[in-house]
Amino acid sequence: MVERPISTLPGSDSASLDTPALVVDLDAFDANVNLVHGFFSARSANLRPNAHTHKTPALAHRQLAIKGSASGIAVISISEAEVFASNGINDIRITTQIPTYSKLNRVAVLSKSCKVSLIADNANVVGMYSEAVTAKNSSVDVLIDINVHEDRPGVHSLDHALKLANLIHDLPGLNFAGIFSSGGPLGGSSTNSLIERDLKALDTFLDYKSFLQTKGIAVTEASFGNSTHNYALIGETKGITEVRSGAYAFLDANHAEHCADLKHAAYIISTVNNRPEIARAVTDCGQKAIGRDLGAPEVLGQKNLIAAAGSAEHGLIDSADGSMLNLSIGDRVNLIPADISTTFSLHDIVYGIRGGIVDSVWHIAARGAFN
Amino acid sequence: MVERPISTLPGSDSASLDTPALVVDLDAFDANVNLVHGFFSARSANLRPNAHTHKTPALAHRQLAIKGSASGIAVISISEAEVFASNGINDIRITTQIPTYSKLNRVAVLSKSCKVSLIADNANVVGMYSEAVTAKNSSVDVLIDINVHEDRPGVHSLDHALKLANLIHDLPGLNFAGIFSSGGPLGGSSTNSLIERDLKALDTFLDYKSFLQTKGIAVTEASFGNSTHNYALIGETKGITEVRSGAYAFLDANHAEHCADLKHAAYIISTVNNRPEIARAVTDCGQKAIGRDLGAPEVLGQKNLIAAAGSAEHGLIDSADGSMLNLSIGDRVNLIPADISTTFSLHDIVYGIRGGIVDSVWHIAARGAFN
Repeated sequence: MVERPISTLPGSDSASLDTPALVVDLDAFDANVNLVHGFFSARSANLRPNAHTHKTPALAHRQLAIKGSASGIAVISISEAEVFASNGINDIRITTQIPTYSKLNRVAVLSKSCKVSLIADNANVVGMYSEAVTAKNSSVDVLIDINVHEDRPGVHSLDHALKLANLIHDLPGLNFAGIFSSGGPLGGSSTNSLIERDLKALDTFLDYKSFLQTKGIAVTEASFGNSTHNYALIGETKGITEVRSGAYAFLDANHAEHCADLKHAAYIISTVNNRPEIARAVTDCGQKAIGRDLGAPEVLGQKNLIAAAGSAEHGLIDSADGSMLNLSIGDRVNLIPADISTTFSLHDIVYGIRGGIVDSVWHIAARGAFN
Repeated sequence: MVERPISTLPGSDSASLDTPALVVDLDAFDANVNLVHGFFSARSANLRPNAHTHKTPALAHRQLAIKGSASGIAVISISEAEVFASNGINDIRITTQIPTYSKLNRVAVLSKSCKVSLIADNANVVGMYSEAVTAKNSSVDVLIDINVHEDRPGVHSLDHALKLANLIHDLPGLNFAGIFSSGGPLGGSSTNSLIERDLKALDTFLDYKSFLQTKGIAVTEASFGNSTHNYALIGETKGITEVRSGAYAFLDANHAEHCADLKHAAYIISTVNNRPEIARAVTDCGQKAIGRDLGAPEVLGQKNLIAAAGSAEHGLIDSADGSMLNLSIGDRVNLIPADISTTFSLHDIVYGIRGGIVDSVWHIAARGAFN
């Protein structure tokens, strides 16, 4: 593989970065992490960072160093888990059911040197987990995925959860650790409607915990996510032991209206390449450099500019009212992604900047590690 | 950077690939390339492959080996150009205006060992091109970008084109090579309306060529793209010297209805992880593994299945009529991306398969090389 050189080194002016470039404003990142982890340091629940949001070991270590953190991270795939483990993280929760032996064989190997936990909602899959880890004389924690929203993964009934918990108890190599749930999507909902929905989901979730406990089953963990928009609500709920969240550290555009206490900490620096119309500029930041499927980017600090459209290779910036844009060819525009996770996954490198100076250059080591 | 191992080697059964995996069906790829390049081998125009579609040197070399090809490729960025040049391609056209000295310095270095051509629609930028390459005692070809559709880059008037051509002639280090244009988007248009639009665009484009020639300026090249849906129409038009196209080799879902003579040659193998509803399956192929911004994927060979929705990490497969899906946890589903270019850019590796066997494992060496 061709290793692309890093052209800009720490100490450089951030204006010297070739674009499109993904940058993290470290003052804003640190403020977000300190605020949210600080909240948890005074609660019985902990925060487990979703490291699949940034895929960057250096950022995961920064998060875990703050009081109020859980002991480890959450990821989506065994590939991501392998990358983070090889970079010094030793408590990793994989938050997707894994129904294939080739991947479970890798899980079993990893679990011999790293605390690995899995989720499941299916008895056959749980059987595969046991088979795979016992073949390597290892063990994993397993949490039951609870369905708290319609048409999403997770068990749908108390009885199903009980049967699955007992199965996990009985099968060799598996430790029943508790229950797990993923919140619903943000899509277009008001903050109040999200709170209402999440309170209902929390009730459902904790009903499972109570039910299992009345049946004599210890439920050590009750892990709820993805919770940037409601971390305080979830974190103060009695019985919840863990909140999973990733976007809190960056505040992407989709979360902004629901999270008044957080700051925008990640954006793409782009350059204007063309000015085809008075109200339109073309930038070098298309879909290959900024995720758009989960919403349009916003122009940092300039509400009069709209970045609604774009192609694979180029972005468009329009003036909101059709007036002449005050942008020339060569000018730079900073774009806040709608969804920060799908944007990190497009880049190889993220630049940490502070006060206009490049402070750090980090490889996004788990980028592309989705299998 | 952590180098992820390639778990599946040539000779393996493609069923052993961990998912999500990007694969190219080599029989279909070769058929598409032979058909389209064969068309051009009997015409005066050549085909210049858009290598930014696949970012994979091995695939570019396969394309250029076929009669009817231009001598080189087209890419979007200097980073891509550097990767392909380091992998043995020595005629590279960068099809975005470049208005920054740091990138032009790299262009100038590359142009000393590789034939590099650039496009422009702006006199100041052309001045920067000259300054950068003469500082390195080098030279580049420059084509004028002609606007043939509203609100896109490119010069808007014959006079502007004439002034720019004269400027390129006069400035040291620059060779005026001809004219260039990019077609409009496919978005939702019928084949007939695309043909009508493209015929109008071709007229406009060739008017510029005639005008410059009447002013005594030699227009060696007239390069038109991106032209998978109309390569034959453009390729038979007198005066066109080059057609740029990338998707023709793969036939993504967006091009399918306009290209009856091509075959689907690239898809993502995904695995069903969950079955939350009778009419719904959840796969491991979300936006991080398949591009969705430019349209929803299609399920290869199964029109009764719909892959319209998905999140960052997961895809949904629904039955078209709400009936029970014949899919179980662990089953595999092959997904055709709406846009193949934004899907290649998500992956590190593409597997070439033939008859169910992994034939080749290629690094997508220019993935992420967008700056």
